[in-house]
Amino acid sequence: MSILVVGSVALDTVETPFGRVTNALGGSATYFSVAASLFAPVSVVAVVGTDFPAEHLDFLGSRGIDLSGLQVQSGESFRWSGRYGFDLNQAETLDTQLNVFAAFHPHLPSAFADAEFVFLANIDPELQLEVLEQIPNAKLRALDTMNFWIESKRAALARTMSKVDVITMNEAEVRQFAGTSSLIAAARTILSLGPKALVVKKGEYGCTVFGPEGFFFTPAYPLEEVRDPTGAGDSFAGGFIGYLAKSKTITDGTIRRAVVHGSVVASFTVEDFSINRLRQVSPAEVARRYDEFRNFVHFDGP
Amino acid sequence: MSILVVGSVALDTVETPFGRVTNALGGSATYFSVAASLFAPVSVVAVVGTDFPAEHLDFLGSRGIDLSGLQVQSGESFRWSGRYGFDLNQAETLDTQLNVFAAFHPHLPSAFADAEFVFLANIDPELQLEVLEQIPNAKLRALDTMNFWIESKRAALARTMSKVDVITMNEAEVRQFAGTSSLIAAARTILSLGPKALVVKKGEYGCTVFGPEGFFFTPAYPLEEVRDPTGAGDSFAGGFIGYLAKSKTITDGTIRRAVVHGSVVASFTVEDFSINRLRQVSPAEVARRYDEFRNFVHFDGP
Repeated sequence: MSILVVGSVALDTVETPFGRVTNALGGSATYFSVAASLFAPVSVVAVVGTDFPAEHLDFLGSRGIDLSGLQVQSGESFRWSGRYGFDLNQAETLDTQLNVFAAFHPHLPSAFADAEFVFLANIDPELQLEVLEQIPNAKLRALDTMNFWIESKRAALARTMSKVDVITMNEAEVRQFAGTSSLIAAARTILSLGPKALVVKKGEYGCTVFGPEGFFFTPAYPLEEVRDPTGAGDSFAGGFIGYLAKSKTITDGTIRRAVVHGSVVASFTVEDFSINRLRQVSPAEVARRYDEFRNFVHFDGP
Repeated sequence: MSILVVGSVALDTVETPFGRVTNALGGSATYFSVAASLFAPVSVVAVVGTDFPAEHLDFLGSRGIDLSGLQVQSGESFRWSGRYGFDLNQAETLDTQLNVFAAFHPHLPSAFADAEFVFLANIDPELQLEVLEQIPNAKLRALDTMNFWIESKRAALARTMSKVDVITMNEAEVRQFAGTSSLIAAARTILSLGPKALVVKKGEYGCTVFGPEGFFFTPAYPLEEVRDPTGAGDSFAGGFIGYLAKSKTITDGTIRRAVVHGSVVASFTVEDFSINRLRQVSPAEVARRYDEFRNFVHFDGP
C-alpha cells in the first residue's frame, strides 16, 4: 500500500568522534523514504532550493520514490549542522538555516490524497495539521515531533497529536511533554489525547510501544560501532511504517514486527554518515538482522 | 541445589524523592538471599555487629536462609547512607561506615564447602578470591563488583574475574573496566579474562547477557513508580542464580529464563524501600510477572 511522508529534505553537516560530513544528504523525509522504500512505494512532500544537488534527487528517484510532491523553490535548501560527542544519544545543534523551508506549506498533489500510510515527520505541528486535512482517507496517520515544538507550539502540537493514530517521540520528549519522570504515566497522558499507540524511542536502549494491547519492548540492534546517529529515528519510522504498509494489516502482531523492522533499518543507518550505509542495504540483510533480533530476545519455558 | 552468597548484611539509610528510611535492613547478601530464597535454599557468609537487630536475623531465618556462616562480632554493623535524585539510576553515597566489616574475612563453615551455586557479592576482590579457594566443587561461580574496586584494586579484581563463570556489572562499570564506550568491545575484553558470561545491568533499561551463544537482551519490568532502587542489582542476581539453582542445569535456555526471573524479582525490590516489598512477594506473583515479560518482548512471523 502507498506511503506518504511530509518532512524535510536537507543538507547536513555532521561531526561525530568518528568523522565528519559536509552538506551531505539528510532530512527527515529523506531518511524515512529511503528506509520505507525497502518495503513499499513512497511519495515525498517537501521543499528544496534550486541549489539542491541533482544526484541526490536522482538517487531517491532510483529507489522508486515519487518526488512529484517535492517543491523546488528558488533559494537555498534547508541546512542543518550538528555535532555529537561520545554520548551519541544527544546531538548538539550548531546551526540551522531554514532557507526555503521557512515558507514551506505542504501542498499534496491530488494523486496523493488517497495515501493510506502517512508519516508526518518532525515539522511545525501546524503544517502537520494542514497535511491531515488533505488526507481524509488515510488508514494510518503517524507523527514525530521534537522538544522545540513542545516548547514553542504546545497547543498546536496537542491538537495535531489528537488527530493521529501513532506518535513516535524520544524518551526525553515524552517525559517533557507530560511533565513527569514516569514513562508509564507520561505515555498515559499522551494516549489520552487520542492516538492508539505511542512509540517511545530510546536510542541505544531500543524502544517501547504503549498500545491498546499493552506494552511491547524491543532492544536496539547491538552494534559494536555507531558512527553517526543522525536519521536513526526517521529510519526507524520508515522501517516501521514501511513494514505495516507492506503487510497491509494493522494488528498487535504486525505492529510488533513493524517495530522490530524499524529497529533493524535504523541499525544500518547509524553505521555510517548520512545515508551511506542505509542506501546499500538489501531486503535480505534486513531479513537477516530481523532473525538475529528474534534470537536476542527469545526465551520460553516457565 | 544449594546457593551460597558472600557479601554484606547492613543497615541502610536511604533517601529518594519518594521517601526515606533510617537504619533499614540492607546489604548485598541480604537482598541476594531474600531474592534467591524464592527459588532454592540459601546460605549466607557475612558479618554483623552486636548491635544488629535480632528481628532482621529472625526474618532471614524464617525464609529458611542458613545463617550459620554469619559472624557476629563485637562492634557496630556496616552502615551505608545514600541518596537518589529523580534520576534513580545513580546513587550518591553520603556516608559509609565499615565498622565490623573492615576486618571481615569470609570463613566458610565446612558444610558450605560443597556449595554448588556461589555468588560473590560486591566486596573486596581479594576477599572474593579467598572464598573461591574454599569452594573447589562449585558448579557456578558468579561475582559482582563496582567502580570503587575497578579504581583501587584493578589487578586483584581482574585475577578474581578470571576465576569465575559469570560476572554481573552495571553498564558504566563495564565501560570503565575496559576503557571503551563500545559495550560490545568492552564485553569482549571482560570475557577474554575467562568467564563464560557477562551480565550487563542497565537499570531501567534492563540487561544484556554476553555469553557463549551470543547476546540475550531483556527489558526491565516497566513500573509506573520506582521508590528506591537500592538492592536492585543484588535482587536481580538472587533471582538469576536462584532460578539456575532451582532448574539444576546451566544452558543457554535456562540462563535466559534465569535473567528474566532476576529482572522480575528486582522489579519488586524497587517498588519500596529496603526489602519491604521483596519480603512479601510470593512465587505466584513472580510467575505472573514472568508471563507478562514474555508478552512484552514476544513477536513472531517474518
